[in-house]
Amino acid sequence: MSLDIETSVKPHERLAASLADDLAAVDALIREKMASEHAPRIPEVTAHLVDAGGKRVRPMLTLAAARLCGYEGVNHHRLAATVEFIHTATLLHDDVVDESGQRRGRPTANLLWDNKSSVLVGDYLFARSFQLMTATGSLKVLDILADAAATIAEGEVLQLTAAANLSTTEDIYIKVVRGKTAALFAAAAEVGGVIADVSQDRIDALRTYGDALGIAFQIADDLLDYGGDAGATGKNVGDDFRERKLTLPVIKAVAKADDDERAFWKRTIEKGDQQDGDLEQALALIAKHGTMETTRAQALEWSATAKTALDVLPDHPLRDMLRDLADYVVARIS
Amino acid sequence: MSLDIETSVKPHERLAASLADDLAAVDALIREKMASEHAPRIPEVTAHLVDAGGKRVRPMLTLAAARLCGYEGVNHHRLAATVEFIHTATLLHDDVVDESGQRRGRPTANLLWDNKSSVLVGDYLFARSFQLMTATGSLKVLDILADAAATIAEGEVLQLTAAANLSTTEDIYIKVVRGKTAALFAAAAEVGGVIADVSQDRIDALRTYGDALGIAFQIADDLLDYGGDAGATGKNVGDDFRERKLTLPVIKAVAKADDDERAFWKRTIEKGDQQDGDLEQALALIAKHGTMETTRAQALEWSATAKTALDVLPDHPLRDMLRDLADYVVARIS
Repeated sequence: MSLDIETSVKPHERLAASLADDLAAVDALIREKMASEHAPRIPEVTAHLVDAGGKRVRPMLTLAAARLCGYEGVNHHRLAATVEFIHTATLLHDDVVDESGQRRGRPTANLLWDNKSSVLVGDYLFARSFQLMTATGSLKVLDILADAAATIAEGEVLQLTAAANLSTTEDIYIKVVRGKTAALFAAAAEVGGVIADVSQDRIDALRTYGDALGIAFQIADDLLDYGGDAGATGKNVGDDFRERKLTLPVIKAVAKADDDERAFWKRTIEKGDQQDGDLEQALALIAKHGTMETTRAQALEWSATAKTALDVLPDHPLRDMLRDLADYVVARIS
Repeated sequence: MSLDIETSVKPHERLAASLADDLAAVDALIREKMASEHAPRIPEVTAHLVDAGGKRVRPMLTLAAARLCGYEGVNHHRLAATVEFIHTATLLHDDVVDESGQRRGRPTANLLWDNKSSVLVGDYLFARSFQLMTATGSLKVLDILADAAATIAEGEVLQLTAAANLSTTEDIYIKVVRGKTAALFAAAAEVGGVIADVSQDRIDALRTYGDALGIAFQIADDLLDYGGDAGATGKNVGDDFRERKLTLPVIKAVAKADDDERAFWKRTIEKGDQQDGDLEQALALIAKHGTMETTRAQALEWSATAKTALDVLPDHPLRDMLRDLADYVVARIS
């Protein structure tokens, strides 16, 4: 879920530059809270992930939302660290469950250490994030993040049951995507507005922005899996097919499949019986039904929703960067 | 960590009878919150654990603390469900990491389902517990439970690094035990007092009670591993030795070891090179240094600390049952 795309316009870099002081404060807080007097192994494991060159999109959403709403306190640092910890914890737990071999081109934590450490250090980061958000003293913030945590966990479980299941609908896919990406994006942006104490319509707008941005980003990511550049995404074309994950291009192709095609999907995705040439056949069916195009259109729609949501927010350079970010996440598929 | 002991005095049963209405409300809440619209697999996994005949010690600590402090609202139900969810989540995550084959004589969740479900459903329960405690609207409660969550996670990681490590001290052992058992016992009792809005010295007393009860219970459990009845604990004698876990009887014996004995512990625990007769030799060394007796004395001391702490609380039948419970957890080793 990184945003590694080669392009001359990099709004997340402009955001990082504008929020440099805030980001430095967040980094210091993250380092402080990762430290464990009793269990020195914890920062060992987490430093690997937190320093792994992530774009810090989630914490920047919180910081930008708070700043563009005029916030002047320190709780945005706590909440930015909170969302980064939650994100890192979910990556650690994902590593355990997915047996994925690499993340951003580096070995995953569970190959360097082990499953035990990944589960428990993930739990530790969840607990730390919980302490950080409690320190803000805002019950509304706690409510939002508790709901986000539930959506994330539910989405992850749903993803398990949806895997290799041809009856997965677009609706289920969107729920999985919310759990995987959009729920934390939405909460990250929303809490920035909450601590700035702006009107509810602005808070709602920030939430809508984060949600739509996350969905647009994830659809684009899933689309690239069937036609992207492996160097850009850190994945190889067809990874999702081989792992029997149902994403939009396939879900839409399955919905239009004739009997023969359905048998093909049943064999390759549901039964997992894949042979040489099957990926090419899958790509041919996707092309036949034009589902790359319809999926792309859907990602662009979500990106547009994200941008429109920003209209009710104050005119501010950070708002422009957030708008550019919504363009950027779909630029690689446009 | 069950309390399955055959004895005629069962204070947890008397507690359950006194708190029957509250427990029924907690059970209903647990069932309601386990349900997942999006991921029906979740209650499947959790029902297995929640219905597995646990003694509900943690929720009863919350309920009893709140009631004996005169609480009349509904937040004690939320918090009792919270601590049971946290407990169940840690069991699920423990199952993943320990590859333990049985828990309370039933197959663990990860044999019936898989590691993925255990990790993610555990996360789901953590998220649900977080929503439940947020619903109480008490920042003090959230503080206490956030700290407990951090102590639990830190203790679990510490346990990993302490495993097979002969330099593990009694101090580290107690920290591990706090993470494993006592932190949640302490928080469970403390939050009952907090929502009842009693004086800080009573809240502190409840915390001390839960902490000391948990430590006494865990020391007794670890002691039984070297001399108990497998049917009573659900474990076999020597499990900890075979798993190279350092618990008090061994930590104390290592501290008194001569060079030959040290070499024995190094080989069997640190290197994990165990042969027939080694458990018998370990038991002989434990007997030689009398560490069963000193460990037992320590458990009894913690039990006494728990009982004494109750003195500042109101005179109440529930207080008497809590006192009996502190006797009960060490009765099996007395």
